[in-house]
Amino acid sequence: MSLTSVQDIGEFGLIERIQKNTRLKHISSEIGIGDDAAGVSFSDDNIMLLSTDMLVNHVHFDLMFHPLKHLGYKSVVVSLSDIAAMNAIPTHITVAIAVSSQFSVEAIDAIYSGIHAACENYQVDLVGGNTTSSNQGLVITTTAWGTAKKTEVAKRTGARKNDVLCVSGDLGGAFIGLQLLLREKKVFLKHKPQEANFFKPQFEDKEYVLQRYLKPEARVDLVKELAQVGVKPTAMIDISDGLSSEIQHICKASKVGVRIYEERLPIDDSAFSTAKEEFQISPLTCVLNGGEDYELLFTVSLSDFEKIKNSPNITSIGYITEEPDLEIITYSGKTASLKAEGWKHF
Amino acid sequence: MSLTSVQDIGEFGLIERIQKNTRLKHISSEIGIGDDAAGVSFSDDNIMLLSTDMLVNHVHFDLMFHPLKHLGYKSVVVSLSDIAAMNAIPTHITVAIAVSSQFSVEAIDAIYSGIHAACENYQVDLVGGNTTSSNQGLVITTTAWGTAKKTEVAKRTGARKNDVLCVSGDLGGAFIGLQLLLREKKVFLKHKPQEANFFKPQFEDKEYVLQRYLKPEARVDLVKELAQVGVKPTAMIDISDGLSSEIQHICKASKVGVRIYEERLPIDDSAFSTAKEEFQISPLTCVLNGGEDYELLFTVSLSDFEKIKNSPNITSIGYITEEPDLEIITYSGKTASLKAEGWKHF
Repeated sequence: MSLTSVQDIGEFGLIERIQKNTRLKHISSEIGIGDDAAGVSFSDDNIMLLSTDMLVNHVHFDLMFHPLKHLGYKSVVVSLSDIAAMNAIPTHITVAIAVSSQFSVEAIDAIYSGIHAACENYQVDLVGGNTTSSNQGLVITTTAWGTAKKTEVAKRTGARKNDVLCVSGDLGGAFIGLQLLLREKKVFLKHKPQEANFFKPQFEDKEYVLQRYLKPEARVDLVKELAQVGVKPTAMIDISDGLSSEIQHICKASKVGVRIYEERLPIDDSAFSTAKEEFQISPLTCVLNGGEDYELLFTVSLSDFEKIKNSPNITSIGYITEEPDLEIITYSGKTASLKAEGWKHF
Repeated sequence: MSLTSVQDIGEFGLIERIQKNTRLKHISSEIGIGDDAAGVSFSDDNIMLLSTDMLVNHVHFDLMFHPLKHLGYKSVVVSLSDIAAMNAIPTHITVAIAVSSQFSVEAIDAIYSGIHAACENYQVDLVGGNTTSSNQGLVITTTAWGTAKKTEVAKRTGARKNDVLCVSGDLGGAFIGLQLLLREKKVFLKHKPQEANFFKPQFEDKEYVLQRYLKPEARVDLVKELAQVGVKPTAMIDISDGLSSEIQHICKASKVGVRIYEERLPIDDSAFSTAKEEFQISPLTCVLNGGEDYELLFTVSLSDFEKIKNSPNITSIGYITEEPDLEIITYSGKTASLKAEGWKHF
C-alpha cells in the first residue's frame, strides 16, 4: 500500500477528511467540525461554544525568544479568540500542559502567571486541566468556552451578496514581529559564547510588532462593541492563519466570492516600514499571508454597516459577491486573484 | 536563584500549586481544579462537566506496540472516564492532535477510526478539535463533556464515616498487560533485523490483560446502573493512576480515613497468575499501584449499599473511617499502612 503524507493534503485537507467521517448523533450538536468553535445547545435558546487549541514547541513558539509568561498568556488568547470569532463571550478555560521533567517549577509558574493574567484580563475562569510529563518538548492545549443566545452566534456560513467585509485592528504586525525575532536569534547564535552576555538585539521602536506576535489579544472587546450597537455579523472568523486563508474559509463555507481593495487593508506604520526597509518584503504579503494577528474578520449587511462605519476599531476592506471568485483590486487599479497562502502547519 | 525541578514536587504537587494560585470569578464555576472534571452550572438545576486529558508518545503510549486504532479509542476513553467519575454521562468530545509531518494520512485515519469507534460505542459526538504539526512526537488531547443534574454529581469530597468503599470490575490487568508488552518489545529488539519478520510475541491466553491496557473502557455503564437503582455515590473517582493513589485522593478531599481488606480486592485470574509466575511481582502491588484500569472507585452510604451489593459489576473493598489513617488488612490479618505509589508522571 502506498502511503499519503500529511504534507500532501495539508491541514485543511486533513480536517475535511476527519469531518467527512464524523457522524453526529445528538440533536444538541448544532455546530460540528469546520467552524472556529463547536456549538452544543443546552436549551431552546442557548448554546455553548467550545474550542480547543494546541501550541507546540518549535512549531508555534520558540523558547529561545518567547518569554514564558507571554507564552502562557498567548495560549489562553488563541482559544478565547475562537470563541470571540463565533460572536460570543468566553467565560471558562481548561489548560493541559505537557512538559519535560527537566523543566523547573519556576518555569511552569511563569507560564501559569501568564495564564492567570489572561484569565484576569478577559474575566475568564481557569477551572481545570491536566499536567503530564513529556520526554520531548513543551505542549500546551487550551480549551475555552462560553455561552450565547443561538440567534447571536456568527458562523462562517452566513455571508451574503453585497455584505460588507470588515476587519478589526490592523494586520501583518505579528508576522513582522516574528521575522524580527528570528533575525535576531540568527545573529545571536553567530556570537561566541563569551560574547552572549553582551548581545543586544536590535529591537528599538519595535515594541508594537513584537507584542503583536509574543502577546496578542483576543478581540472580545469587539464582540461587545457589536452587541452594544445591535449588529450581528452574518459571518465571522478570527485571523490566525492569514487574511487570504480566512477570507477563503468564509467564502467557501458561505458559497460566495469577495472583492477586496488593497488600499483599504489596515497595516500598522511600523510593520509597514519594517517589512519594506528591513526585510524587503511587500507589506501586502504580510497582511494577506502573515497570520497570528488574532483580529476578527467578519461580514455585515449594508444596513448594519451603517451602525459601525465610524468605529475606530473596524475597517471595511471589501464586499461579498455572488460569483465565487476571490479578487483583490490593487493600488494601481488592477484586479488580481486572491491566493490563500496562510501559514501552513504541515 | 535555585530552581526546583518538577520531579521534586511531582504531578500532584504541581496541580496543588496551580490550584492555589487560581481565583474563580464566575458564580457558575462550581467545580474547579482538583476533581476528575470541571463543573460549570448553566441553570439552577443543571451543570456541565468537562475534562481534558493528554496522551504523549513515549510517556502514555509506545507506537511500537500500541495499535493506532486502539490508541485513538483509548484517547477518547480516558476523557469519558473522567466524566463518568463525576457520576455523569459524557455526550460530546473534541480531539486536538499534534503529529509529525512524516506521519502518513493513513496512520491518522487509523487513529480516527478508533476515535470514531469509541464515539459510536459510547454514543458521544465528536464536534471539534485541532490538528497541528509537531516536530517531535505524537500528542493527543481529548476534551469530553456532559451535563447532569447538580444533585446527581459525585465529587471527591463527599465520603463520610462508615460509607462503603466500592470498586467496579477488576484491577491490575492493565499494568500486567503493559509489562507483557514491554517484555516482548525487549525480546524483539534483541533480534537481528532479518529475524524480525519471524518474531512471534508470547501473548497466548493474554488477550484480556493486553486489552485492559491497549483498549480500556470507561465505566459509563456503571453510572447508568447506579442511577437505575437510585444510588448516588457520596464520592467517586476513576482509577487511572492506581487504587492506592485514588483512595488517597478521596480521603484527602473528604477529610476521612479508610480501611480496606486485601482479600476483597478484585483481580482477574490471568492477571494474578501472570504477575506471580511470569514477573514474580505481588498481585497486590499490581492492584494497588498499577493504574490505567479506568474502573470507578466510589463510596456509598450503608443504606445505598444494600441496593447494589449483589451487582456482579461492583465489589465492596472496605469502609470509610473518621480517623484519617489509610489502612489495609492483609490476608494474614495484619494491619498495614496504605501507601500511594500510583504511576508517577514526573
